[in-house]
Amino acid sequence: MNIIKNLSVHTATNTYPIIITHHSPAYSSDAKLLAAYIKSRQVLVVTNTTIAPLYLQNLLEALHDFDVKSIILPDGECHKNQDSINQIYDALMMHHFGRDCTLIALGGGVIGDMTGFAAASFMRGVRFIQIPTTLLSQVDSSVGGKTGINHRLGKNMIGAFWQPEYVLINMASLQTLPAREFSAGMAEVIKYALIADAAFLDWIIDNSKKIAAHDPVVLAQMVHRCCQYKADIVAQDEKEAGVRALLNFGHTFAHAIETYAGYGVWLHGEAVAAGMVMAARLSQKLGYITTDDLQKITIILRTFDLPIAPCDIPPEVFLDLMGHDKKVKNGKMRFVLLQKIGQAVLQTVPEDALQQLLDESYA
Amino acid sequence: MNIIKNLSVHTATNTYPIIITHHSPAYSSDAKLLAAYIKSRQVLVVTNTTIAPLYLQNLLEALHDFDVKSIILPDGECHKNQDSINQIYDALMMHHFGRDCTLIALGGGVIGDMTGFAAASFMRGVRFIQIPTTLLSQVDSSVGGKTGINHRLGKNMIGAFWQPEYVLINMASLQTLPAREFSAGMAEVIKYALIADAAFLDWIIDNSKKIAAHDPVVLAQMVHRCCQYKADIVAQDEKEAGVRALLNFGHTFAHAIETYAGYGVWLHGEAVAAGMVMAARLSQKLGYITTDDLQKITIILRTFDLPIAPCDIPPEVFLDLMGHDKKVKNGKMRFVLLQKIGQAVLQTVPEDALQQLLDESYA
Repeated sequence: MNIIKNLSVHTATNTYPIIITHHSPAYSSDAKLLAAYIKSRQVLVVTNTTIAPLYLQNLLEALHDFDVKSIILPDGECHKNQDSINQIYDALMMHHFGRDCTLIALGGGVIGDMTGFAAASFMRGVRFIQIPTTLLSQVDSSVGGKTGINHRLGKNMIGAFWQPEYVLINMASLQTLPAREFSAGMAEVIKYALIADAAFLDWIIDNSKKIAAHDPVVLAQMVHRCCQYKADIVAQDEKEAGVRALLNFGHTFAHAIETYAGYGVWLHGEAVAAGMVMAARLSQKLGYITTDDLQKITIILRTFDLPIAPCDIPPEVFLDLMGHDKKVKNGKMRFVLLQKIGQAVLQTVPEDALQQLLDESYA
Repeated sequence: MNIIKNLSVHTATNTYPIIITHHSPAYSSDAKLLAAYIKSRQVLVVTNTTIAPLYLQNLLEALHDFDVKSIILPDGECHKNQDSINQIYDALMMHHFGRDCTLIALGGGVIGDMTGFAAASFMRGVRFIQIPTTLLSQVDSSVGGKTGINHRLGKNMIGAFWQPEYVLINMASLQTLPAREFSAGMAEVIKYALIADAAFLDWIIDNSKKIAAHDPVVLAQMVHRCCQYKADIVAQDEKEAGVRALLNFGHTFAHAIETYAGYGVWLHGEAVAAGMVMAARLSQKLGYITTDDLQKITIILRTFDLPIAPCDIPPEVFLDLMGHDKKVKNGKMRFVLLQKIGQAVLQTVPEDALQQLLDESYA
């Protein structure tokens, strides 16, 4: 199978293509797709210990015409930190990379976010290409230019908006993705339906067996649709001054859950699933969505083996952790809520409703 | 004395004012000048151990209407690194600073560059204000949005283009500036004359006694003129795709000198002075400027007690250190040369001419 879908992301700073393809074995024959987006001969592939044995050799062979180096970082959210970024800088410096070099992120969201931030900050900004290998990074984090690392007190606190030159999604990489990671990706897929398109939620429900069975045609349709939602929102609001904040549905709760449990204990998508249920319950408390809506949301998340409640976090700790989130404005916490399924809104929430939600979640 | 000069910097991403004033004691009555550029109540002042005892209290009092915190970093180029940036991040996180906070850099180029990079990368970008306290930072580094830190293998290798909201230059701060630091600033002043305006070089020569005596009117004219050169160049080329590279006259040599000697042994301006003489000698070797021009350049630098030759660096080490510089493009080294005094050009240089220059400098 060749290129099966393609679309473009338009931002104020850059316009770049997303190509959805299905070459197997993944990346071994993707040289032509990549070459046009590399400027000088210097290329650094950044990947991790899980992905390297599966796909690094394929990609290096595809890039054999370039002066290509690679760096293999430890896998996992707990390594999304300054130490890993420093390893990337060191590799770039030791190999005398110049300002016209290209970084390639080969991995999931953690590798993509870190490689993007290294590219944003090395020599005040060099080019980078996203090759997302997980469902979550294909539908969400590889598109839109949010890059960064975690601070020990909060997720994604250090970073930059830095758009890639190109996003290459090879669906064949999902063949090696663990089931738990696939489910985590489904949380972000379901998120698009909840905030933007009720009909897409019904499509997911109708196709849930084919999705679970990794039907390649259905999966490609699904990934393409998610990338299109993301591209549309990013085109309207690259720097998250408005509508882009709606993509954070469930994320204020999710970031607190991830920080509390320790980075990597929960997969990001799992925390997002639990966070979305909390945000949906808050929406229901405030009279927006019905209990039937709430049930529909929890059922589809359970269909994909996703958690629908947080771990036990004392309410006062939960509140403090959320206070570190980027959605805090002038000291007031704002949440993305569902007005109905398929329509989200960002607003401040009465303290007692929030307190009640956290108390119930802890009980 | 009130506002004595003001001008604006226009870039693709931002337009912001530079105010040159002469309030004494410095900053104690600058509240009105600052308040308009602060968005929320959260303000973090970043300064160092040298500047804090002189001016921090004045500034904090001027800002007493805000929720203002401060952090005092160790002074010097050798601290322009990730450790210092991490201290800024930690302060921002511990005080629960949000995305609408404002950072204020109170200090010289090192504090300005680090505060700017912390602002560029905290929560993917927050506001910052430059209050440059040294001549060098007033005429050069506080304007134009180059921010960053050093890597152990090269100067300013990690950073971002991130424009301040406002630059407040209070000339009264020069009263406490050590003579050696003042001289270092003069190197960058002379640089503008060499690359852009031969008449300004004659003005500096004619006014050198008044400059050395810190005549406030002459100094304000000089700083204003330098900021205007910088603003004009940055407006044309914010991201250094073209003409802005000319501001790096002498800097490829200077960065190698600073890295070789150890960060902080040479002041940046001192290394720039020696680097400019090397670049001028290269220009003379290639038949551009005359030996008379070269002599004029060395004399004015010596007038301000600036070095006109590098420390003894073995030529092969010098070459390797320069290979790390950002001016390397596809493996080829490019230098800013003088076609004549007041006119610079960026070009690749024959290897033998460069080798000869380095051999002579080492002999």
